[in-house]
Amino acid sequence: MRIGFLGPAGTFSHAAVHASPRTPADAELVPAGTVHATVLAVQSGTVERALVPIENALEGAVNATLDALAFDAPDVRMVGEEVLAVRHCLVAAQDVPLAAIRTVLSHPQANGQCQDFLRRELPSAAVLPAASTAEAIRLVAAGEAPDPPAAAIGTALAAELYGAVVLREGVEDDASNVTRFVWLARDGAVDDAADAPGGRWKTSVVFSGDGDGRPGWLVRCLSEFAFRGVNLTKIESRPARHRLGHYLFHLDMDGSIADPRVAEAVAALEIHGASTRVLGSYLAA
Amino acid sequence: MRIGFLGPAGTFSHAAVHASPRTPADAELVPAGTVHATVLAVQSGTVERALVPIENALEGAVNATLDALAFDAPDVRMVGEEVLAVRHCLVAAQDVPLAAIRTVLSHPQANGQCQDFLRRELPSAAVLPAASTAEAIRLVAAGEAPDPPAAAIGTALAAELYGAVVLREGVEDDASNVTRFVWLARDGAVDDAADAPGGRWKTSVVFSGDGDGRPGWLVRCLSEFAFRGVNLTKIESRPARHRLGHYLFHLDMDGSIADPRVAEAVAALEIHGASTRVLGSYLAA
Repeated sequence: MRIGFLGPAGTFSHAAVHASPRTPADAELVPAGTVHATVLAVQSGTVERALVPIENALEGAVNATLDALAFDAPDVRMVGEEVLAVRHCLVAAQDVPLAAIRTVLSHPQANGQCQDFLRRELPSAAVLPAASTAEAIRLVAAGEAPDPPAAAIGTALAAELYGAVVLREGVEDDASNVTRFVWLARDGAVDDAADAPGGRWKTSVVFSGDGDGRPGWLVRCLSEFAFRGVNLTKIESRPARHRLGHYLFHLDMDGSIADPRVAEAVAALEIHGASTRVLGSYLAA
Repeated sequence: MRIGFLGPAGTFSHAAVHASPRTPADAELVPAGTVHATVLAVQSGTVERALVPIENALEGAVNATLDALAFDAPDVRMVGEEVLAVRHCLVAAQDVPLAAIRTVLSHPQANGQCQDFLRRELPSAAVLPAASTAEAIRLVAAGEAPDPPAAAIGTALAAELYGAVVLREGVEDDASNVTRFVWLARDGAVDDAADAPGGRWKTSVVFSGDGDGRPGWLVRCLSEFAFRGVNLTKIESRPARHRLGHYLFHLDMDGSIADPRVAEAVAALEIHGASTRVLGSYLAA
């Protein structure tokens, strides 16, 4: 099985694929350049599965994933979920005192997750964005980062892959921080978890409607779930991409779409003029 | 009056301060290093006002602004709103044919907003992230960008400030793209718009509650607005920062907090165990 992930080698997504019990031992791991490209590799059939980040406990939704699914991947479904603790390392080409570091490179989300650490321990270092945590570590390990001595924030896996030195482990501000990933497959692909007995199921849908400028429209839509006792675990609004003030709403809820209460609530959105797509039902992590 | 903005000089935020009719001619403009620092400069009284981006029509909420207001700036209020079209320029140190450009530098959000242009007109150029659009233009103007000839994407203001040449104006993919900014001041500071006659007012609140795991809790909260005919213009969920699955909800609505329907709906959230903070009432842009 070919499994797509946000590359290059050594990203947090790569580490997540390694850690997932759903990754077959003989899987071929295929890096993609962006989250968007990772989702589209499933849409085009270049890979059979992908594991993409969808939500971080501190930073919130991964908008690139939500937007790629909603706008550009009509045949992709969510078929599983993983929740993984985020462990960041401060990494450099060689052992160097923290006070000497002039530049810190990482993905903006990782920089955000370590901002208290950076403000406290490296107050005078410039914090620069890189395309990914792994790319940051590769640049630092290769001596290609601007204004050295430079450090990067990323995974222990990347430090190992690129031959860099871990200066400090667990530099994330919140040790309880976790990221939620979803497994993606094309619609109709067999879901290996589909016949798993018991377990807690979740369903994700995305909907929008022209009525969203009228008072109470969103409440009337959400009431369809409340009336039927369906618990919404998450609501996220994303720009509808035509004009400011119009949104797509992403909902996660407890229960499978095979549960009549869930199916009826989702179907009832049509009464309110909403157009709705079920992104998938899957076993909760 | 001292006015804070996301620096360095020449950012889109800087251009927004210049463009705003609410900026006094004799204002002293004070750049801050991050959105978080810009908001905190108002909280600490270092500046009397700040203008910060809060939402982009394509990219969605500016999470750093929402989180800084909710978590770290209890005394800061929204006192005004500006909506500005996003106009990006392709800029270089000197006039150079587009086909010769090997590297394009900008903030990842600006790169994202110009990706169709870049794929179409500069398909073989490497697109690299910079800390801000202004920093990208400064580096390119100073000949410090990697792998020249290099170009940057940013404001015409930055091109002027750093002595660079505008190669192409309006390189954004969506000419209708706009960013919404909010004016911030400390609670109790006189709002210059407070006695403006007429105009459309908006109110922003943030709330959260321990009941958010029960089916229908969010619907019951939002119903308080719907029952009173208060139109919600925006709902955004942000992680509550203790554990995955708990959120702060940011709501924007039509009407001032001086409108009894708005005030009663906000007060009624307490019945549902929500703790609520009014972030401000202001004239809509």
